[in-house]
Amino acid sequence: MRVRNRKGAPEMMAQNTQYVVENPEAFKGRWSEKFGNENPIHIEVGSGKGAFITGMAQKNPNINYIAIDMQLTVLSYALDKVLELALPNVQLLHVDGSSLTNYFADGEVDQLYLNFSDPWPKSRHEKRRLTYKDFLKTYEMILVKQGQIHFKTDNRGLFEYSLSAMSQYGMTLNQVWLDLHADETFAEQNVKTEYETKFSEKGQVIYRVEAQFQDEMSKMSI
Amino acid sequence: MRVRNRKGAPEMMAQNTQYVVENPEAFKGRWSEKFGNENPIHIEVGSGKGAFITGMAQKNPNINYIAIDMQLTVLSYALDKVLELALPNVQLLHVDGSSLTNYFADGEVDQLYLNFSDPWPKSRHEKRRLTYKDFLKTYEMILVKQGQIHFKTDNRGLFEYSLSAMSQYGMTLNQVWLDLHADETFAEQNVKTEYETKFSEKGQVIYRVEAQFQDEMSKMSI
Repeated sequence: MRVRNRKGAPEMMAQNTQYVVENPEAFKGRWSEKFGNENPIHIEVGSGKGAFITGMAQKNPNINYIAIDMQLTVLSYALDKVLELALPNVQLLHVDGSSLTNYFADGEVDQLYLNFSDPWPKSRHEKRRLTYKDFLKTYEMILVKQGQIHFKTDNRGLFEYSLSAMSQYGMTLNQVWLDLHADETFAEQNVKTEYETKFSEKGQVIYRVEAQFQDEMSKMSI
Repeated sequence: MRVRNRKGAPEMMAQNTQYVVENPEAFKGRWSEKFGNENPIHIEVGSGKGAFITGMAQKNPNINYIAIDMQLTVLSYALDKVLELALPNVQLLHVDGSSLTNYFADGEVDQLYLNFSDPWPKSRHEKRRLTYKDFLKTYEMILVKQGQIHFKTDNRGLFEYSLSAMSQYGMTLNQVWLDLHADETFAEQNVKTEYETKFSEKGQVIYRVEAQFQDEMSKMSI
């Protein structure tokens, strides 16, 4: 998500260190201390303006959420929501998705969300897609064994790519949705992102997958 | 595909034993003899009226094709096409898809096609879907090691189901199309079924996947 710079965003972030993590390296392996409890930790990589993660955090007070985005301005909009809702179970992390192993220990994260990630449609930009194998490897390291990625997008090309990338990596696709909003059963639990609301109103199909890493033994010789 | 019975179909089939295999069990492990050459063998399970397999056979004279359908009437329409085109590389098999190991030896088949299979949308009919795990097991037995299934459908529910069923079986999804006819590169090689032509003209999206079995070692502990 690209947005215009927001005046005062850096100052706002600096003033709210109860929600914005200043020195994330220091919490590697110690996020439970930061949250003050042993609840599961779910992260969203590329959290944008935070509608999804703050919605999830409201629905699930016994899960700790970490919103990760490399753009300060969009994170500052997520901060608006966290401040307004005074959510104790959300932290905001202003870092790059490729550097996650600097901030999380092996197996420290229970689940990972990707929502409407940048599609990077050109072949030469494949490595930037958040479902490229190098990213999957990073996610696998910080996730619990057989951890899951829940991924939503409206971008057909990125979804086609991601299904095969995850499969070729050795992940199992537990469930696939090719028109998420047509699934009335899932609608109750679905927390929409800003983008999702906007584009589904235009009749755009939303895709979703729940994919799971397999343990080392099962991938041994792939 | 369900069609009205065709008068004279049984007689027509019985009169054209050069194309219609009378005693398929006898050719288990010996299909190359039947075709009179060592070319690769591709089969289509649920071949319907045969537009796909006869189109493929015309395009690829160095591949042997076997059209399999349990409905005599639809196979008789496939026979019309094979007779008209006098295709030497097609055989028609009037058997049930679940009994394929009776007619093919281990590793005898090089590739398998499923096109617009019956979706069987009710959960209690899951076992009838041609991508149900018991069918996948049968396909794996008769296919070469790391053999592939190429599957097309316009049915969203069946495609969602099949992607996860194949993935959970341990197959790798090499490539996925969520709007096949939008792919101009693939259009040149795409042989359409009767059904595909009809429904894509109505604006229906066509899905496709190329999925591959993994060798024993890689699935050992899944």
